[in-house]
Amino acid sequence: MAHASLALQAALKQVSAEMDRQFDLLLAVPGDPRKGLYEAMRHAAIGGGKRLRPLLVSATAQLFGVDRTCIARTALALECIHVYSLIHDDLPAMDDDDMRRGKPTVHKAFDEATAILAGDCLHALAFEVIADEKTHPDPFVRIELSGTLAVAAGPAGMAGGQMMDLEAEKSSFDLATVTRLQAMKTGALISCAVESGAILGRVPIEGRTGLRGYARDVGLAFQIADDILDAEGDEALVGKKLQKDGEAGKETFLSLLGLERAREQARMLVDQAIEHLKPYGTEADLLRDIARYTLERDR
Amino acid sequence: MAHASLALQAALKQVSAEMDRQFDLLLAVPGDPRKGLYEAMRHAAIGGGKRLRPLLVSATAQLFGVDRTCIARTALALECIHVYSLIHDDLPAMDDDDMRRGKPTVHKAFDEATAILAGDCLHALAFEVIADEKTHPDPFVRIELSGTLAVAAGPAGMAGGQMMDLEAEKSSFDLATVTRLQAMKTGALISCAVESGAILGRVPIEGRTGLRGYARDVGLAFQIADDILDAEGDEALVGKKLQKDGEAGKETFLSLLGLERAREQARMLVDQAIEHLKPYGTEADLLRDIARYTLERDR
Repeated sequence: MAHASLALQAALKQVSAEMDRQFDLLLAVPGDPRKGLYEAMRHAAIGGGKRLRPLLVSATAQLFGVDRTCIARTALALECIHVYSLIHDDLPAMDDDDMRRGKPTVHKAFDEATAILAGDCLHALAFEVIADEKTHPDPFVRIELSGTLAVAAGPAGMAGGQMMDLEAEKSSFDLATVTRLQAMKTGALISCAVESGAILGRVPIEGRTGLRGYARDVGLAFQIADDILDAEGDEALVGKKLQKDGEAGKETFLSLLGLERAREQARMLVDQAIEHLKPYGTEADLLRDIARYTLERDR
Repeated sequence: MAHASLALQAALKQVSAEMDRQFDLLLAVPGDPRKGLYEAMRHAAIGGGKRLRPLLVSATAQLFGVDRTCIARTALALECIHVYSLIHDDLPAMDDDDMRRGKPTVHKAFDEATAILAGDCLHALAFEVIADEKTHPDPFVRIELSGTLAVAAGPAGMAGGQMMDLEAEKSSFDLATVTRLQAMKTGALISCAVESGAILGRVPIEGRTGLRGYARDVGLAFQIADDILDAEGDEALVGKKLQKDGEAGKETFLSLLGLERAREQARMLVDQAIEHLKPYGTEADLLRDIARYTLERDR
């Protein structure tokens, strides 16, 4: 948590503990042949990760005084989708990664079939969590959350972006295509986190423009920082294999812009993200801290 | 469609055409690097399959005079889940099947990464379709459909059943465990189809007992018939590799009961399913025909 403000450090710690607690409840291991499936989900979901998306749900919803249980359960649903995507992306047929968050990936610690099913189960559980009235008493809020999450996870969002990322190894994408790819692959779920906070806060569509701009810019800055970490980071700190993009011959923000321009672009995006929060006072300081932190993180 | 009544034949034909039409609209191929992903989804989703789950949604909802668009879109969502599960179940790490519905499986026609993502996308699209107000104007109906589908797809339903099925190759399950496995693996989504028809029809929970009994019995009868087809069916008609359970040393209804008792059990379940429909008049004849057809089908 290098360079995170004290307030952000406290918030990250609180959200991480809450997510671990929520996953522990959601993924209680049954005493039947599905034991390995649940253990695999727990392995991937508990005790690790930056919990950036849950933090964004929480920091946004707090602007509007949303109930803590509603926040925690919505954040849990988003993190279910994020964790499922990591499990599937790590599979041998996809990015073929052995380490994630400093631990063996699910298909390494268990097996491929269990990893595929653990991802599928977390995917379904996200929508089960959202649909439960414990997440929000108003069915209209729940179905809006559910639809927003489904679009962000599907072919127009995260999964579509992953498909483009696989194609990136075979083609030579330009900056516009890489930007679109990343806006889908990581940006869609980051935007969905902020949007979910606004939905919980019952912000009407026309009142979400600033928050949407914030989310888009933070998502891109986060990805540029990720590209820089992939090239220059410390594998022990990041907890996964690095320098994979270069080896795969994939165009990234870094390869297309060079290190200096990529850093500059990310700083510009962070400033722009913070500018989008102008209508908000100190209650949005956590969102501002998150924007700055996307560049300063070392994992 | 051997032995299907004329009314059932007409309904199957109508539902199949409607599902192909819905998938064609849902899966319009974009002119970008996701082209292969959409083609893979279309390969799996269009022009094949018995469309049993959409038919059950439709036949149940018709009891209550539900609007045709609501029925078609809800049926589409269920079939998205069913098709995604077939794509993932066929993967080399899972059941490792080369043929499905008389065509190469998705990972054979495309590649494994595309198959994983095509399944993931159909999974998300199911919840996107349900959340859209075109599916039903009342958000309460949509969120109930969504939650019911998520539970049926997840670790307590279809995906949990598939995990138990993989374990079945390593263990020697008794009849109670095989029954539970199948009630989850195929039964959960079949039950969800009937339940969705009742939700669209605004049938309160206490009014669904008969329909739930019907769905449970039809689901089990269907699975016993599937086991018998696996042992005795014609590969050309069924369109996939057969006799896999025996080779894998898996216990099934057939291995545990023997052919004669398995047939008898399935007939008993069909009679019982029809008995559950006693409160309904001729308007439930299609549901009765579906129950009988589960045993008589040759594919």
